Amino acid sequence: MSSLRIAVVGAGRAGAVHARNLAFVPGAELAGLIDDRPDAVAELASECGVPVAPTLAEAGASLGLDAIVIAAPTFAHRELAVAAAEAGLHVLCEKPMALTVAECDEMIAAHERAGIVFQVGFVRRYRDEFVEARRRIEAGLIGEPMVVKSLTRGPGLPPPWSWELERSNGMLAEVNSHDFDCVAWLVGSPIERVYAETANFKGAERGVEAEDFYDNAVVSLRFASGAIGTIDGTCPADYGYDARAEVLGSEGLLVIGEVGGSALVEARDRETGMVRPISRTWPERFGDAYRRELEGFVHAIRSGEPPLAGGAEGRAAVAAVRAANRSWLEGRPVAVAEES
Amino acid sequence: MSSLRIAVVGAGRAGAVHARNLAFVPGAELAGLIDDRPDAVAELASECGVPVAPTLAEAGASLGLDAIVIAAPTFAHRELAVAAAEAGLHVLCEKPMALTVAECDEMIAAHERAGIVFQVGFVRRYRDEFVEARRRIEAGLIGEPMVVKSLTRGPGLPPPWSWELERSNGMLAEVNSHDFDCVAWLVGSPIERVYAETANFKGAERGVEAEDFYDNAVVSLRFASGAIGTIDGTCPADYGYDARAEVLGSEGLLVIGEVGGSALVEARDRETGMVRPISRTWPERFGDAYRRELEGFVHAIRSGEPPLAGGAEGRAAVAAVRAANRSWLEGRPVAVAEES
Amino acid sequence: MSSLRIAVVGAGRAGAVHARNLAFVPGAELAGLIDDRPDAVAELASECGVPVAPTLAEAGASLGLDAIVIAAPTFAHRELAVAAAEAGLHVLCEKPMALTVAECDEMIAAHERAGIVFQVGFVRRYRDEFVEARRRIEAGLIGEPMVVKSLTRGPGLPPPWSWELERSNGMLAEVNSHDFDCVAWLVGSPIERVYAETANFKGAERGVEAEDFYDNAVVSLRFASGAIGTIDGTCPADYGYDARAEVLGSEGLLVIGEVGGSALVEARDRETGMVRPISRTWPERFGDAYRRELEGFVHAIRSGEPPLAGGAEGRAAVAAVRAANRSWLEGRPVAVAEES
Amino acid sequence: MSSLRIAVVGAGRAGAVHARNLAFVPGAELAGLIDDRPDAVAELASECGVPVAPTLAEAGASLGLDAIVIAAPTFAHRELAVAAAEAGLHVLCEKPMALTVAECDEMIAAHERAGIVFQVGFVRRYRDEFVEARRRIEAGLIGEPMVVKSLTRGPGLPPPWSWELERSNGMLAEVNSHDFDCVAWLVGSPIERVYAETANFKGAERGVEAEDFYDNAVVSLRFASGAIGTIDGTCPADYGYDARAEVLGSEGLLVIGEVGGSALVEARDRETGMVRPISRTWPERFGDAYRRELEGFVHAIRSGEPPLAGGAEGRAAVAAVRAANRSWLEGRPVAVAEES
Repeated sequence: MSSLRIAVVGAGRAGAVHARNLAFVPGAELAGLIDDRPDAVAELASECGVPVAPTLAEAGASLGLDAIVIAAPTFAHRELAVAAAEAGLHVLCEKPMALTVAECDEMIAAHERAGIVFQVGFVRRYRDEFVEARRRIEAGLIGEPMVVKSLTRGPGLPPPWSWELERSNGMLAEVNSHDFDCVAWLVGSPIERVYAETANFKGAERGVEAEDFYDNAVVSLRFASGAIGTIDGTCPADYGYDARAEVLGSEGLLVIGEVGGSALVEARDRETGMVRPISRTWPERFGDAYRRELEGFVHAIRSGEPPLAGGAEGRAAVAAVRAANRSWLEGRPVAVAEES
Repeated sequence: MSSLRIAVVGAGRAGAVHARNLAFVPGAELAGLIDDRPDAVAELASECGVPVAPTLAEAGASLGLDAIVIAAPTFAHRELAVAAAEAGLHVLCEKPMALTVAECDEMIAAHERAGIVFQVGFVRRYRDEFVEARRRIEAGLIGEPMVVKSLTRGPGLPPPWSWELERSNGMLAEVNSHDFDCVAWLVGSPIERVYAETANFKGAERGVEAEDFYDNAVVSLRFASGAIGTIDGTCPADYGYDARAEVLGSEGLLVIGEVGGSALVEARDRETGMVRPISRTWPERFGDAYRRELEGFVHAIRSGEPPLAGGAEGRAAVAAVRAANRSWLEGRPVAVAEES
Repeated sequence: MSSLRIAVVGAGRAGAVHARNLAFVPGAELAGLIDDRPDAVAELASECGVPVAPTLAEAGASLGLDAIVIAAPTFAHRELAVAAAEAGLHVLCEKPMALTVAECDEMIAAHERAGIVFQVGFVRRYRDEFVEARRRIEAGLIGEPMVVKSLTRGPGLPPPWSWELERSNGMLAEVNSHDFDCVAWLVGSPIERVYAETANFKGAERGVEAEDFYDNAVVSLRFASGAIGTIDGTCPADYGYDARAEVLGSEGLLVIGEVGGSALVEARDRETGMVRPISRTWPERFGDAYRRELEGFVHAIRSGEPPLAGGAEGRAAVAAVRAANRSWLEGRPVAVAEES
Repeated sequence: MSSLRIAVVGAGRAGAVHARNLAFVPGAELAGLIDDRPDAVAELASECGVPVAPTLAEAGASLGLDAIVIAAPTFAHRELAVAAAEAGLHVLCEKPMALTVAECDEMIAAHERAGIVFQVGFVRRYRDEFVEARRRIEAGLIGEPMVVKSLTRGPGLPPPWSWELERSNGMLAEVNSHDFDCVAWLVGSPIERVYAETANFKGAERGVEAEDFYDNAVVSLRFASGAIGTIDGTCPADYGYDARAEVLGSEGLLVIGEVGGSALVEARDRETGMVRPISRTWPERFGDAYRRELEGFVHAIRSGEPPLAGGAEGRAAVAAVRAANRSWLEGRPVAVAEES
């Protein structure tokens, strides 16, 4: 059986992670990069030894593709995903799936028509401590989920196009999409109502002028099952990349993830104390899960089984993020159904 | 200098902790117990070797008191605190301070008139990891607080009188008063707005019929400083007593407390993994801080310095708790000022 | 029942800890300090509000004592303990019990003749994680102990009189006596054979000229039960005070103690990572256990029950330490019986 | 550049790990399995889709090999490694390198004559927390190493051929070879003298009759640099696979590895406490390091740079293990030079 030929669209940080990981995925190979900024993509293309195409249309003709990974900015997702579906290419689409629920619906319709695999890049579903937590919850080990909490914090500002709410849905979309998907997956029930508070502490000093920019958010959650919870996000949080969750069930607690990033402790000075490395970036925090996510994509294509996170899951997260932004803007709790 | 003679009012669990700890507080002695349920108090009185008075009025006459610790149900706090003030007795009052802000105001006025010390039992202000966290925040080590989170979970139902919201302000008062005080103290700014979601998962199975009973809550917070945050509480959470907080500042993170309760790890079986003891109860979790709280009370009486948490702090927590309950009942964010 | 009047002999660091803790021990009171260096003792005496006597003989006459705590240098232990026994005073003697096994035998004979309580200050027997570990081993939870490891490291050089092996038995006595007692207690079997390696890394730079000085040691252990193990010690280890142990049984592992000293984590900078405070000194590491040790002493006096560690346990540790020193000097494994 | 064709010799647990990992190593491919037990190897060959050859000689003819991974029993290493060298095949040889120093010398001579890469499978040199520890030590961050400790424990008995000391050098070779290499690498200095104590707690009950069998060992170490240390090993230790080390330098401490194996904590019952998964097996504990070890092997072949651990390192560990066994058998400290 020959390898699946996969191109990566968008040569930013996420694109580079996927392109490099494809070398380690049995049954797949990186067939090329698709990016219309020749300078931005040259180094990665050379490192990976693959050709570059400026557009999906040209790539489809020249690269002999089976599938693409979409790692372009969110506002480009819909068009790319629909075009890929029409060309019969399977799609692994980075989160957030799109800007609006209507866009999501269009994408879902296109891939259903085409009968291709459409997977959304919710990488936590492939990370061992999250996977094992979900397994335990499903097995009933902690009873019925009552309270769930999830946070993501990262160093550095997200890219400029994501500072404006209109164009990106803001930090809740760019950073916390993972949490919105993750809590629903862990609890096993959709988010029904959200309430958001936000704060902008570092925007001004870092040159962000967008009026509706926020760099901190906390979101209250109510699930269809009756469970409640919170999501919080901060970016930039200069201390490192941090992704943790906690699920309290009627019969037990699960604490998922930790601040420390490596099993190494150093103590040099008793005024300081003991020091442990931290995950500096998201590829460090979730490294091998990105490879497993690609393996999952290959498996879905080969087996015909649905991917762990498809269009419905991507759409649900977009709806919840938008409801949270509306909650903040309107100062009231918002039913996710208002956005669905 | 002779020892301060202190009586404990209310011989429940908290009362017993204070009564026993007084033996370890230099400059103070347990002078007696005050409780009108002779059967409930006999064993503790015998253990401590002190007399019992049925009421504060009789105790004042017979026990030669300097001060009292109020560990009676919340609904009795106002009357006891005012009577003590009128009798010139210093007061350490367990949390929550009272049922309403109006009651708090009456208590504050009484102790100001009497010139006595009035301290509220916010024991986390005496617990080393919390104290050190506050010190670091004040010293500017993590910059400006942006996001703060605090939780309390305990095994077992609170006492029956606290199941009805009207009579107790519910679990947010009985369990999470500590968190409401703690977050404002850590952030260094009052809570301005709250939004609450609650859930009732175990009430029915444990015989609680009160209509407005909840055993889980998450509360979104906005502070006057612009910081945001969350509090959550669950009771009963059968896995143990758990109190943790987290403060993310513009220049760093503090994680306060941990799930594990003792520096002992056991591994016997590779299917299970490693096991670490947990704090089973709040006296275990905060044990020595209860003693230090009493030492702080003695110090305030001797020195004339204000206690770490006085009437204003107790009142602020009552107002925030009531605002959270109103938020839940009315399904909207509530300004704490509405309750103040 | 009136309080036991207890004097502390020796106003160094250990003496000060015991003197201060006596204020918190029900049924006991600090009756005075005994030290023949008036300047060294004045501040502590003033802080505690107690008189000073230059010698035990004078104290016995003037202070109305029931008991003493011996916190003088090791070479003074025998004489003090025998004199106390002859005066009918109960004795809590800091570790190491004495310099030689012959001295220990003399002390044991004296306290047996006098019928007094003689306790040795093996404080780990009062520290919760050690106590709980011993309980689990006794209960058979980890099966038969196979391998045991224990370490102690402290910042700062021990006092100058302890630099010469002849006068003190060196660091293994001053620092690791606790470990020698602890491993035998945890395993439930005496040490039978030892082999020691030592190293001197910092002596020269810190002005220690004693030829047989060492600041690092590792000792191999064989127990009568067939278990094996190691002890290691380092002093000065500038990163803090560290005391940890590990017992591997036929059915499980216990890890006792941890490097981190407080449940507080700080993360400010992703190059550094997360930072946790460490115990800076032994009073910080074992703080409340010192109080419980005094309570145990009072209990032994009141109840007539033997103390947790008496003369036999003190003697066993002295014999094992001396065997380890001999092993190092002679370059061969040494049976503890050679020193007994 | 075409992929290196690599065969794995020996289809036991280690062989299977290497065979499976080769699918993830860019620039290499699994060309076949070499094993003379057709039944033992059939399933793995089928899973990997590669042919089987009964001997290296036949494989060399039929499989078009560039290199082999030797995962056969220790007593077969010398013959395989020499034959491979003579056939011009690069060799990655599992630890321990061989049974005697003389065998090691023969292997080193053969690969030097042939000019091939000869690497020994000291996988800890590829594991992140160990790599980072070594980097910090080399950078001088903890000063001069003074004390080093390393342990390995695993569930289950090693294979029967390793029960007899004569045929295998026992558990110190089979399990603790990693530690002997690791401590010398971390300290940056060879082991000069060892002293060993051993114990046999479970042999009889698990059917091991070999007279010189031991399942627990502690070894004291002295290094050429003046540092001291210990190694300990236990197998079977049913609680899991455990590999930890600790290096105390003149200016700081490094603690490497931890008992817990995943960032997931579960708490369900306050009598039990919190529970964290453990590494159940060595592939779980060191999983991705095995892949990186193979990448390192490919890199050494491609680049001509020496591997991280070659013949000299393998020989040093064999000498130290044999010295430790002799120490135990003769009841005295043994200079490693006696075995070199």
